[in-house]
Amino acid sequence: MSKKMNQFDVVGLGQCSLDIIGRIDDYPEIDTKTELNETLIQGGGPVATALVTLARLGVSTAFVGKIGDDSFGPRIRSGLISEGVDCEGLVTEVGARSQFAFVAVDQDGHRNIFWKRGSYRPLVKSEIDPKMIVSSRILHLDGLQVEISVLAAKLARKHKITTVLDGGTLRPSMLELMRYIDHAIVSEKFAWQLVGDEGPKVALEKLLEYGCAAATVTLGVKGSWTLTAAGEFFHQPIYAVNVVDTTGCGDVFHGGYIYGLLRQWPVKAAVRFATACAAIKTRKLGGRTAIPTLKEVEAFLHRGD
Amino acid sequence: MSKKMNQFDVVGLGQCSLDIIGRIDDYPEIDTKTELNETLIQGGGPVATALVTLARLGVSTAFVGKIGDDSFGPRIRSGLISEGVDCEGLVTEVGARSQFAFVAVDQDGHRNIFWKRGSYRPLVKSEIDPKMIVSSRILHLDGLQVEISVLAAKLARKHKITTVLDGGTLRPSMLELMRYIDHAIVSEKFAWQLVGDEGPKVALEKLLEYGCAAATVTLGVKGSWTLTAAGEFFHQPIYAVNVVDTTGCGDVFHGGYIYGLLRQWPVKAAVRFATACAAIKTRKLGGRTAIPTLKEVEAFLHRGD
Repeated sequence: MSKKMNQFDVVGLGQCSLDIIGRIDDYPEIDTKTELNETLIQGGGPVATALVTLARLGVSTAFVGKIGDDSFGPRIRSGLISEGVDCEGLVTEVGARSQFAFVAVDQDGHRNIFWKRGSYRPLVKSEIDPKMIVSSRILHLDGLQVEISVLAAKLARKHKITTVLDGGTLRPSMLELMRYIDHAIVSEKFAWQLVGDEGPKVALEKLLEYGCAAATVTLGVKGSWTLTAAGEFFHQPIYAVNVVDTTGCGDVFHGGYIYGLLRQWPVKAAVRFATACAAIKTRKLGGRTAIPTLKEVEAFLHRGD
Repeated sequence: MSKKMNQFDVVGLGQCSLDIIGRIDDYPEIDTKTELNETLIQGGGPVATALVTLARLGVSTAFVGKIGDDSFGPRIRSGLISEGVDCEGLVTEVGARSQFAFVAVDQDGHRNIFWKRGSYRPLVKSEIDPKMIVSSRILHLDGLQVEISVLAAKLARKHKITTVLDGGTLRPSMLELMRYIDHAIVSEKFAWQLVGDEGPKVALEKLLEYGCAAATVTLGVKGSWTLTAAGEFFHQPIYAVNVVDTTGCGDVFHGGYIYGLLRQWPVKAAVRFATACAAIKTRKLGGRTAIPTLKEVEAFLHRGD
């Protein structure tokens, strides 16, 4: 994972957010007033938190995205810079509101996310640096801004840069993006939007039709299912830990999976490592608080050896 | 409602908050992710919003309370000052976090409030100006900081200043405060905590035992019940309007009720006016957006004449 000046192992293009996280006893009924037991304000967003995960694991990363010039923007930026994620490609739009989320986390670690995308215009070609993408090893996308994501993924494909997609919600034209994706990791909701009740295997087969090398669907406590182009199909259960907060679990899973790709591990090993990263993450409040270092993941995976 | 220099008709001592309000279609199930249709960041808090109501109605008001020196504090302060509420008594505590709330409002106007009190120390005697209280006509309290509220209410009682309580949650030692309250307006929850399932009349009788002139319990769409020391007991139904957001309805009701007290109206007229203020308020998103001017309330009450 060597790095030349201005080159990064992983470039992520997508969402960054300011998350206000509040701990509650139980998720409240409608039309009630609930005092939070504890609050935490922290950066979030699928791609941004995946990059923070990679940074903690020792990988050089750069984020490409947008913030507004409101009071949330600088906190989003400093939350990435303090983790060592390069933010040269993070554009501030004057007069725009940054993405934010309020996350209510109950005592069992279930979380409800209420979020609002930023009011800025979508990133355009002139706002991104193609050199940064073509000099990287992996491009990570979440597809919220589909147009620029397709453009970046096409560029990556042309230069044989591996592309990874975090598919949370199946948005219009996301399937166009899928044509340029090497590794797709999608949510249960995304899989359901794709194939309805036909189950994970059918969803994964459908994703592989777009030409990716491997596809995974994450199912929360039910673990994940993965299908590779070589025909390998497997289930990875979650690791049992004392769950405090599942916020950002998917984002951290992506970071861990990408780490495995950089190390050129078999997909199964990458998924196992990603699952461990996500499990460790759940032990503290906040999407990023308990994201592990490499040593911590290794120690976790070798417990009981 | 004349006013000398540094004198205010109504002084409020209590909570002020920064509210992040998000509109949703339906209140979501547990463990889901919901994108907000619209967001609004606005000042809130029971006493603070009651004072904004009075200010819009043309009354001179001053707020006494606390904020932190975080990014939310200045927005809370400017939200009051821009309405003409005096903030000389609003103390900023260095290193503290301001009170905030996230409010999810569904398409029927139901709201779920998730809030966290500020991390500042409670207001103490040396932080408040007794002259401001004794030169006012009405002191409005919400009793979250019970110790200083009791002190202020005692002082007001000594100087024959009318005291009004917004009772949201029946907290320990709030009944001590009740001994110095002239008008108590409490929530359904407060009444239930006081007398269980015995109903509004028993709750109001219990409140009157503490010596107040009138007590009201507000019941949302079920309107309100009031009992006066003179034995008058009545129900006030709500006014039918197209409800967008019920956030802050109770706070605005208090402002309207206090307006009636200043005008020396009979309690029944004050409750009717308060109910109209609260109804008008619900027509736009946010606890304060649609708070009416006096002309608007008068026009509303004379519709169909």
